[in-house]
Amino acid sequence: MTYSYDDLYAFSKSILQAIGCPEKDATLASDVLLSADLRGIDSHGIARLAGYVRLYEKGRINPTPQVKLVHETPSTGVVDGDLGLGLVAGPAAMKIAIQKAKEVGSGWVSVKNSNHYGIAGFHTMMALEHDCIGISMTNASPLVAPTFSKERMLGTNPISVAIPAGLEPAFVADMATTTAANGKLEILQRKKADTPYGWVQDKEGNVTTDAYGVQQGGALLPLGGDREHGSHKGYILGSIVDIFSAVLSGANYGPWVPPFVAFLEPDPNPVGQGIGHFFGAMRIDGFRPAEEFKSHMDNWIRRFRNAVPINPEIPVVIPGDPEREMENERRKAGIPLLDPVINDLKGLSEKYQVPFPG
Amino acid sequence: MTYSYDDLYAFSKSILQAIGCPEKDATLASDVLLSADLRGIDSHGIARLAGYVRLYEKGRINPTPQVKLVHETPSTGVVDGDLGLGLVAGPAAMKIAIQKAKEVGSGWVSVKNSNHYGIAGFHTMMALEHDCIGISMTNASPLVAPTFSKERMLGTNPISVAIPAGLEPAFVADMATTTAANGKLEILQRKKADTPYGWVQDKEGNVTTDAYGVQQGGALLPLGGDREHGSHKGYILGSIVDIFSAVLSGANYGPWVPPFVAFLEPDPNPVGQGIGHFFGAMRIDGFRPAEEFKSHMDNWIRRFRNAVPINPEIPVVIPGDPEREMENERRKAGIPLLDPVINDLKGLSEKYQVPFPG
Repeated sequence: MTYSYDDLYAFSKSILQAIGCPEKDATLASDVLLSADLRGIDSHGIARLAGYVRLYEKGRINPTPQVKLVHETPSTGVVDGDLGLGLVAGPAAMKIAIQKAKEVGSGWVSVKNSNHYGIAGFHTMMALEHDCIGISMTNASPLVAPTFSKERMLGTNPISVAIPAGLEPAFVADMATTTAANGKLEILQRKKADTPYGWVQDKEGNVTTDAYGVQQGGALLPLGGDREHGSHKGYILGSIVDIFSAVLSGANYGPWVPPFVAFLEPDPNPVGQGIGHFFGAMRIDGFRPAEEFKSHMDNWIRRFRNAVPINPEIPVVIPGDPEREMENERRKAGIPLLDPVINDLKGLSEKYQVPFPG
Repeated sequence: MTYSYDDLYAFSKSILQAIGCPEKDATLASDVLLSADLRGIDSHGIARLAGYVRLYEKGRINPTPQVKLVHETPSTGVVDGDLGLGLVAGPAAMKIAIQKAKEVGSGWVSVKNSNHYGIAGFHTMMALEHDCIGISMTNASPLVAPTFSKERMLGTNPISVAIPAGLEPAFVADMATTTAANGKLEILQRKKADTPYGWVQDKEGNVTTDAYGVQQGGALLPLGGDREHGSHKGYILGSIVDIFSAVLSGANYGPWVPPFVAFLEPDPNPVGQGIGHFFGAMRIDGFRPAEEFKSHMDNWIRRFRNAVPINPEIPVVIPGDPEREMENERRKAGIPLLDPVINDLKGLSEKYQVPFPG
């Protein structure tokens, strides 16, 4: 089944208002959430709405947070998300980073006491219209084992970087620091297919191709997959995301990060508040004239797009291209939802007396 | 053969002075160069001294550069390395980043018109004693093919992040954005061994296990190895390093980066000046009190060090631990050099009339 962006957006906004979010927050959060559906990152879009609501029902999301800058220097700061939606705290913190970049060249904001913030790329793309490079990362529920370990210590901890160009579309990277994001496992589960080696290990730390390996007590593997293929580098990247997002801000880190799912309880002895994010903005003309930079970015993008392909029919991809094409398509043709997601949303519709489209 | 740190340091300094470097620069450059040998990153240490000298002899390294900050805001800037050693421009730029962090919370400096800057980790560790997080990256000679391409477009483009701790040693990450660094290929070549799958492709873009695959027109592979294992993420990381280091500063990027080896000529139509680096420093107390942060870093490090191991005899590694242990060992036992390196250095000794130790 396919739904229009506008219909899903209105539904998301109404549900968030129904659980007590002010209209402004419900609008902003729906912007962030639906951007994932538009860009084809279905695991992070409206499919998560019911998950957020369940956390609210457990008292683990505050629908009326007072998001506050609690510590700052001219170019850095910490934001307290007041246990609200990361979908609200994230854009607020990114705005502060951009404002600081306008004032002193760059801005860097670490966020504590937050919840899941949607796709990392939404936040970084906010920087583009200000001629800034945007940077964003977040920690997340522990599902990933460090190299040599069988214990889940890190989330899929994504990193996004958005870089303005001139005539070419912007460079927008948004990547989990694992070999494969959780969403890809779900696709294989639905297909009843195995995973490639290097995505998942079982609970003893052995390589497995079982797409349910994580559910059975195993772990996702850091980018690289195994030591021989550089998994220590994926572990390093996930660790840096964890430290910048949470040790800098005062959020929970590593295995203490509260789980996104409402049926798992957070650690009774937390080391911080909520989950953490990290945002950065650098003004291009803090380095060189913006037009000069953008013209070289155009050249960079064109040169890489035209790098000699192995198979002439499969050209090199510029980060952000596939998501932008998907967005163009889905704005016209609508957003496809899977049956389990539709059922979840219909459940919300009934419970909160908000009509579901179609 | 094993040599003392002091002997190799004195030799390096004398050679650099012999090609015209002022004493201050020769000292600093030898600090950077020899730190690689101490930390066990043999490919980036004194083994490269002859390479730097050959570039000098070709007129591609200026021994008496005037390293200058040519553009700035309170928290950002661009440094022109004046075609000198990156071993000199790098620490100068990192100092500026740290100074800016002291003034406004963070400092970010992109460098153009430079040459190879040694190990990325030397620069980031400069930040530690100032209670700053240090960040450093550099582009390098194109040896890496983006996902789906058979053309060498990127260098091994390393990223280093150094993070202060309290009672525990600092977290010091320093990683190439490829599956395996070039140095590891050299080790296999000496052993006449094959590489694992996922390190190298041949000139047609096919997977190969030939340790000489790169020399024969192939390419190193981005971290991940192939698309199924996330090589697009390694390509993204290498690209971000390239853009931050060179498109922001005005250095050469992508395939235009001048080769480190003197027998390959730089592109006759450069898109910038020399190679590029990028440095950052963030003051810990720009986010939260430094002592509070450090005590949580200690907790982070201990928790990860004690993550349940797969094999009880192989514990989880904290980034920086192996290099620090190596440094302790080599400061006592000396630095081992391979015969080809010794012969190279003896060649320099003869040519520049500088006695070689032992």
